[in-house]
Amino acid sequence: MPKVAIVGHGQTKFSKEDLKIESILLHATKNLFDSTSNLSQKDIDAVLVSTNNNSKYLSAVLSEMAGIQPKISHSIESLCNSGTNAIVAAYSYIVSGLAEVVLISGAERYDSPGQILEWDNLRGEFKHPIFWASIFSKSYKRKYSLSDEDLALVSVKNHKQSIHNPNAISQKAVSIKDVLNSKKLTDDLRLLDCSRPCTGGSSILLASENICSTFTDTPIWITGIGQKTTSASFTKNPSFDNMESTIQAAKSAFQMSKQKPSNVDVMEIHDAFSVCEPMALDSMGFSKQGGGIELVKEVYLTENSKINPRGGLIGSGHPLGATGIAQTIEITQQLHSQAGKRQVDHAKVGLVHNMSAAATSSTVLVLEK
Amino acid sequence: MPKVAIVGHGQTKFSKEDLKIESILLHATKNLFDSTSNLSQKDIDAVLVSTNNNSKYLSAVLSEMAGIQPKISHSIESLCNSGTNAIVAAYSYIVSGLAEVVLISGAERYDSPGQILEWDNLRGEFKHPIFWASIFSKSYKRKYSLSDEDLALVSVKNHKQSIHNPNAISQKAVSIKDVLNSKKLTDDLRLLDCSRPCTGGSSILLASENICSTFTDTPIWITGIGQKTTSASFTKNPSFDNMESTIQAAKSAFQMSKQKPSNVDVMEIHDAFSVCEPMALDSMGFSKQGGGIELVKEVYLTENSKINPRGGLIGSGHPLGATGIAQTIEITQQLHSQAGKRQVDHAKVGLVHNMSAAATSSTVLVLEK
Repeated sequence: MPKVAIVGHGQTKFSKEDLKIESILLHATKNLFDSTSNLSQKDIDAVLVSTNNNSKYLSAVLSEMAGIQPKISHSIESLCNSGTNAIVAAYSYIVSGLAEVVLISGAERYDSPGQILEWDNLRGEFKHPIFWASIFSKSYKRKYSLSDEDLALVSVKNHKQSIHNPNAISQKAVSIKDVLNSKKLTDDLRLLDCSRPCTGGSSILLASENICSTFTDTPIWITGIGQKTTSASFTKNPSFDNMESTIQAAKSAFQMSKQKPSNVDVMEIHDAFSVCEPMALDSMGFSKQGGGIELVKEVYLTENSKINPRGGLIGSGHPLGATGIAQTIEITQQLHSQAGKRQVDHAKVGLVHNMSAAATSSTVLVLEK
Repeated sequence: MPKVAIVGHGQTKFSKEDLKIESILLHATKNLFDSTSNLSQKDIDAVLVSTNNNSKYLSAVLSEMAGIQPKISHSIESLCNSGTNAIVAAYSYIVSGLAEVVLISGAERYDSPGQILEWDNLRGEFKHPIFWASIFSKSYKRKYSLSDEDLALVSVKNHKQSIHNPNAISQKAVSIKDVLNSKKLTDDLRLLDCSRPCTGGSSILLASENICSTFTDTPIWITGIGQKTTSASFTKNPSFDNMESTIQAAKSAFQMSKQKPSNVDVMEIHDAFSVCEPMALDSMGFSKQGGGIELVKEVYLTENSKINPRGGLIGSGHPLGATGIAQTIEITQQLHSQAGKRQVDHAKVGLVHNMSAAATSSTVLVLEK
């Protein structure tokens, strides 16, 4: 079965702009075409759109606008990890032989309907994600004797790192004090602990090893894939201080890639809220349970940006359907040593962690040069 | 690479009932579990939902309700051929080795937002499908010297056949006169020429050949897959009297399966409107251009139900995200010789044709015993 490579990408700036979803998809795709050698519309066998937008038939709409007539064409939605779900679908279309080259475009508007979990509301639960994030924060702090200041460091680090990401919504450093003094949303969550909904798009091109040399001399291989959905509702989580779906997804991805946490040089972690970063680090085996925040501190103090170099969701913004693709593009750029001031030294193995709704669903990808 | 089989299915009745999308998905899935031997929740590696409904995270919601914790879980949307897109995605997850058993559940409510093509409207085109159907009808009738009576026979045949389909929305025969006297929607289209939006769900289970004997002694193999999207907007069609995407999808599906039209014993055709059935027959090579209606007449007169035995979309109803799955279940039942009064004699090779938006996108599947 053929290996699958990332052979091109394009992005838009993440912003609060009021743009049509079709324009965002097309803009990111145009940037991909502009930066990918020898790519012609007729090379593309499949077009997948990743979004929570309510518009229908967007993959056909994007295809028509971009001059592509694909064989396979559909949208994929799984809330905040729609993007990596689309990447895994593209991977399987290529490995199964149904496609050789797949374009994936993820996009979202700042007012995405995916930000509100109506289903939880119907069940008498709280429909806004800040409620599960607040419960996670309280539980994690209590169990590991952490303070609000400890968790605020995630936001400080990621805002600092996003300054070097030209596509990030935030280009401004914040201090621990800024985070603690920002608007209090719940007892355990402040505004600067949260990633921001935004408008943005990210497109990525995957190709079979049989054809990837047409487009690049430096393919980035998808060597590990792990996915798990444990439930839809956050109250079904077996624990509020680790992430069961992330534990299982990471285990599968490391097994498939024959890699292990200590081999990973750079990673994108789904920091929808401050607490998510250390919890995910623990859950994937980068730290012992409760030790994630020490790792965050170490990265911050040594000015090594190996965790969320583009600024994570907190610094970059979180356009739901685009996020997983933007994360994957960042790791691709890191492995290409083309990440500018964000560059991590000697990056050979990278990891993407992308999740939905209180970590009830997670994707973990391992990428290698 | 492993072959992929259909090993189980479950459906709901198609109706005008006001049901929650989650209930429809679960109902069809429960019927699948009830009728599939030895199936346990833990066997299922992936859950895919096919729908145009605006609710998010439905695959995780369905999984939780059904007690499944899948690895892969997401929704798929491509308007009216969402269902077969989900089947093809499931096929590729299995062939690529990411999954061995995939549950697909398609569902729609009678008020699905997929029925209105907002994007066409924004472009100054007509957003309701009756407009493209009307143009197709006028063009096809003019080119091949056909009358309204000729096309009305499609509706008469399919209403007659749906009487034997317990899940169909229509259980009533109609005459040519009934069709011609039904409400005139445009110069070339009457109410009984149209499939009806409805509420309904269909679930299907796909498995790798390595494991399918766990669930059935009579797997139905997916031997041919063809897909093509030529545009999103109907005015981009190169012709209004055949279906370019269907021509190309059928060619690919026959090539992959090493079958040809004359070998097909039973078929489901996407008769969203009367004219679509003869046009699709022409486009797939079952008839010469313009000859499809002769084939329809022959089937009608000989009381052989080989074209749309369950009554097609016109007789059964058209719950968008469920339709392609319901079509595939019908062919599965036919190949199992379990289609009751709808049964076609000696069916060994079957075909599914499922399309979207003025045939701008088509899927063709070949299924075999």
